[in-house]
Amino acid sequence: MNYPSGIMKKTTRISHANRGMGLESDINITNKYYLDNNIAVVHKRPTSITIKKVEYPNNKYTKITDGYFKAASTTDYNGLYKGYYIDFEAKETTSKTSFPLSNIHSHQLKHISNIINHGGIAFLIVRFSKLNKTYAINGNFVLEKIKIKKSIPISDFETFGELLKEAYQPRLDYIKVIEKYIKELQYEKHN
Amino acid sequence: MNYPSGIMKKTTRISHANRGMGLESDINITNKYYLDNNIAVVHKRPTSITIKKVEYPNNKYTKITDGYFKAASTTDYNGLYKGYYIDFEAKETTSKTSFPLSNIHSHQLKHISNIINHGGIAFLIVRFSKLNKTYAINGNFVLEKIKIKKSIPISDFETFGELLKEAYQPRLDYIKVIEKYIKELQYEKHN
Repeated sequence: MNYPSGIMKKTTRISHANRGMGLESDINITNKYYLDNNIAVVHKRPTSITIKKVEYPNNKYTKITDGYFKAASTTDYNGLYKGYYIDFEAKETTSKTSFPLSNIHSHQLKHISNIINHGGIAFLIVRFSKLNKTYAINGNFVLEKIKIKKSIPISDFETFGELLKEAYQPRLDYIKVIEKYIKELQYEKHN
Repeated sequence: MNYPSGIMKKTTRISHANRGMGLESDINITNKYYLDNNIAVVHKRPTSITIKKVEYPNNKYTKITDGYFKAASTTDYNGLYKGYYIDFEAKETTSKTSFPLSNIHSHQLKHISNIINHGGIAFLIVRFSKLNKTYAINGNFVLEKIKIKKSIPISDFETFGELLKEAYQPRLDYIKVIEKYIKELQYEKHN
């Protein structure tokens, strides 16, 4: 089937709405924790939707009766940490051996490249659901890798990525990774 | 009528889709210019929508048949300029004398406050449509003002805000204002 980006995820999310499972849910809970504890301000970008028709069932609200999902032109999350702009995309894969880069669309790669060029921090959070492991990997690494390969092997995540700690609070602690990226960014600036 | 935030704007936008008028359109065109010319990366956050029902008319796409608008919990725009996180809300008013602060919701004010506390740049772009003038005004100023007044008089925009130049390209040049905010931010850091 020929769904544009993210559709399967979204429709899945609708039916599983109350289960609160999955990477997206973990990140949203983590972001709320960071916000409530004054650590970082990171929000999920709402899904882009084109609205074709609305109705007014009563005076209280507007009902969308015809709309469709648009392909994402940016990443899922962005925000602010210690004055630094951060931007990331979150993906799950059922593969046990590698993350297929076809999961990241060309306009999203362009966006990651733009963020890096303008002095921001861009990365991916990738969950290998069958391995029960979630990694962060630098956007720079992804942009270099995609020039030569169609996927990133798990060994690359182990070597060049950062395994994210999962716990009760914060659910998926990715701030330490950003601390590392900030150091790298400052190193590049001064060298 | 009891519409949540932004609804009137969105429904208006649907019927006027091809006219390309209004502040939102001007900012979107400006953002595209900034992106294409490698000046800044600023995107409009999509409107937050809760989807209640979808259908699959054929194998090609998912149709939203029941959904509604959610109140915005952040601002309309955010992005990155020279390594700085920027965040702003855009509003139009038909008033010739003042901008009513009831246009900015409490969760948006909290968001502006969060952005400033975490070292980002937050501001409003306000168009006085009947005066044909568009100003930027610092988030800090708005947060202070709302403690004592219910609106910001036009004289405050003239004195403390920045009149934005409107032209063919860029349509609404707000980058110079950000340059000013960056200088202020750096001054605060070092004093």
